[in-house]
Amino acid sequence: MLKNDPLEQWDRDTFLHPSTHWADFARGKAVHRIISSGEGSHIVDREGKRLLDAFAGLYCVNVGYGRTEIADAIAAQAKELAYYHSYVGHGTEASVTLAKMILDRAPDHMSRVYFGLGGSDANETNIKLIWYMNNILGRPEKKKIISRWRGYHGSGLMSGSLTGLAAFHNAFDLPLVPILHTEAPYYYRRPDVSMSEEAFSAYCASELEKMILKEGPETIAAFWGEPVLGTGGIVPPPKGYWAAIQEVLNKYDILLVADEVVTGFGRLGSMFGSEHYGMKPDIITIAKGLTSAYAPLSGSIVSKKVWAALEQGTDEMGPIGHGWTYSAHPIGAAAGVANLKLVDDLGLLENAATVGAHLRKAMSDAIGDHPNVGDIRGEGMLCAVELVSDRETRAGWDDQKPAVTAVARLLADGVIGRAMPHSDTIGFAPPLCLTKAEAEEVAEKTAKAIKGTFGS
Amino acid sequence: MLKNDPLEQWDRDTFLHPSTHWADFARGKAVHRIISSGEGSHIVDREGKRLLDAFAGLYCVNVGYGRTEIADAIAAQAKELAYYHSYVGHGTEASVTLAKMILDRAPDHMSRVYFGLGGSDANETNIKLIWYMNNILGRPEKKKIISRWRGYHGSGLMSGSLTGLAAFHNAFDLPLVPILHTEAPYYYRRPDVSMSEEAFSAYCASELEKMILKEGPETIAAFWGEPVLGTGGIVPPPKGYWAAIQEVLNKYDILLVADEVVTGFGRLGSMFGSEHYGMKPDIITIAKGLTSAYAPLSGSIVSKKVWAALEQGTDEMGPIGHGWTYSAHPIGAAAGVANLKLVDDLGLLENAATVGAHLRKAMSDAIGDHPNVGDIRGEGMLCAVELVSDRETRAGWDDQKPAVTAVARLLADGVIGRAMPHSDTIGFAPPLCLTKAEAEEVAEKTAKAIKGTFGS
Repeated sequence: MLKNDPLEQWDRDTFLHPSTHWADFARGKAVHRIISSGEGSHIVDREGKRLLDAFAGLYCVNVGYGRTEIADAIAAQAKELAYYHSYVGHGTEASVTLAKMILDRAPDHMSRVYFGLGGSDANETNIKLIWYMNNILGRPEKKKIISRWRGYHGSGLMSGSLTGLAAFHNAFDLPLVPILHTEAPYYYRRPDVSMSEEAFSAYCASELEKMILKEGPETIAAFWGEPVLGTGGIVPPPKGYWAAIQEVLNKYDILLVADEVVTGFGRLGSMFGSEHYGMKPDIITIAKGLTSAYAPLSGSIVSKKVWAALEQGTDEMGPIGHGWTYSAHPIGAAAGVANLKLVDDLGLLENAATVGAHLRKAMSDAIGDHPNVGDIRGEGMLCAVELVSDRETRAGWDDQKPAVTAVARLLADGVIGRAMPHSDTIGFAPPLCLTKAEAEEVAEKTAKAIKGTFGS
Repeated sequence: MLKNDPLEQWDRDTFLHPSTHWADFARGKAVHRIISSGEGSHIVDREGKRLLDAFAGLYCVNVGYGRTEIADAIAAQAKELAYYHSYVGHGTEASVTLAKMILDRAPDHMSRVYFGLGGSDANETNIKLIWYMNNILGRPEKKKIISRWRGYHGSGLMSGSLTGLAAFHNAFDLPLVPILHTEAPYYYRRPDVSMSEEAFSAYCASELEKMILKEGPETIAAFWGEPVLGTGGIVPPPKGYWAAIQEVLNKYDILLVADEVVTGFGRLGSMFGSEHYGMKPDIITIAKGLTSAYAPLSGSIVSKKVWAALEQGTDEMGPIGHGWTYSAHPIGAAAGVANLKLVDDLGLLENAATVGAHLRKAMSDAIGDHPNVGDIRGEGMLCAVELVSDRETRAGWDDQKPAVTAVARLLADGVIGRAMPHSDTIGFAPPLCLTKAEAEEVAEKTAKAIKGTFGS
């Protein structure tokens, strides 16, 4: 480890960090923190402070930190062959093996995988493939895409347009055409408190259908959705939601893209969110959990139906004009193979289901009755605590975010949570290997942080 | 290494390779090739065949294959901490060190770096930062971007729109608004053979100015260009080109983005193409040579002028709403630090300049007089041989690409070159560590392949 060096100054003088107040960071007012190591659910910073990372990085370090099985696979691949491209039928043993492992785990109706680097570029690939498909099928006008308010699908110009959160649109001129947004399936924020979950699901589906009919079904190519809303507030769908949505999509021949960047490979306690909720997607976006973030890798898994159009397309047009230099990067592929094995070997799907449920129960027990806790929700290894100023009206605050304060208190107490953007919600997405004792620690310290934030 | 396994079948059944004829690949008609190892300028495939990779992967393995210094750095980082995010002021020693190393090497007027994964997403970041900047500066109408026919800037929806090659647009509905394309600085393909290089440069600049005036200078935000056209044919600019272009851009207050994904960190025999040609870019896109592709990593280096607007922006609007989960990934950062050191330690800038020149001279000596060789060109460690049916008229062929045949012959003879899309050009972009003997082998075998293609 470097010591007595100007690392902090270098950082402030040269580095544009994501989601950071750049001016404050440059002038030394915003946090600078160097992370040095990690093990299991914990990370250690350069000052030696050990933290329980109850957000798994950015919901991505699913197997936890310090897994030597993956580090060794990366090291071996780096030594043998760090890079060769995957263009024109080239690959490595790891990349081909991983493609096979992904398809073995994906729903039966899926056919093939295109590899990318991160979730954003995978969603770009998806849009390109869908437009290509509809051109090949002779319906060039069928190109608009509907995603949802509060959806998160990336930070590129088009993937950021799919995203339905103002913080990622403001001053970037997003969303771009032809992306439209429909109702978020956010039951706690339903317009009419008396609505049942099923009624709210039917309402969401009817809002979608209204939009489709207004635009013209012949112009709508695809619907984009995370099985559980992630960055938009960690919001599982209300009962019957996906069945109702799927029915509308089928009616108008609109593709379903399941963005499983957060939910894929175990976070919900099942291999994919699609199977968890009975969705039948035409494309599945994967990233984070594919490698547990040990190396960048993403993918687009396409269904047999989409594959048939792609096959027809290259027969008609020749090789596909789409490629990333780092598609199926050998280091990412080696990490992915080792990671998916580890997810199986450690029984992390089951652990995500049982310990995740334990976390939500512990959270409810510890703080569920607090007058400023409006909702505690989640699924698998996901948990959200939504704060309100009034439980009856579900009202929030205009000019403050108590979740930010609570998360800062929690951090000072050794636990990393996240103040979710666009709601007063504290989010948790711990490594899938979280233990029950760690779950109890998260709940207990969160309760303490919330009580401290509100004075009792 | 796996043996007697169904790897090929897995590949054909599950893997969507970039730039591949997917239908042919699936039915077993297109090449399937597994690469197993590499050393220096050579790779070895699974059948044990050793090949001289005179394209360095995809112009990216600049330091050559099998560098233990980088493999060891990756292995050490994977063991210590494979991942933590870089959001909200977080980093690792490697990522902060690399940011500093990049700025130390960049032109003096550059200020900070935003890390991405590959060149495509770095160009997405650039567009976002430019639009943000012009919103902050109170000129929201100044958003159009001009790039060039034959430019290559990525495969996303917007980065693919910046790209000016039909193979990357067809059936994907690209380019999207508001991207426009102007004349390629392709002197060999100048409209009037009698034009001097300087006159052609003035013509390119006047065509650009015409486009700007037609659209309205107040609507044009930026001009995008590779210092040397890469995928568009490996075409160095004619004399005076960049000075003439820069003058037009300055006149209308239009930003210059230098896409140095191919040229950055030594390919031209200098650290950046921008300094090589006296360009003064506002943003520099970097990727490939940053890590020699040992791990995915890209970046956007912004100038002091751009930084001033970004600083003002976050003061007015708060934290920037832009982030990739894998921005500044620790594995990529560790690879980058080791790679840039190696570029220095091995003296690869000088080797690129001297051996690159040697390669072009050897190529001219070996095949320059052939009646079907129209042009031999390049700069630094780049070389292109353009084939024609008639040297006088520079005419090509309608229905065949002899470059494809020649490259296949060359491959059978143990050397990897590339048939560039959209011209009958054989391209070379070897590792910067290429030896003179290897350069001579490339030239000699290329001459043989071309003669074999044309029957003499």
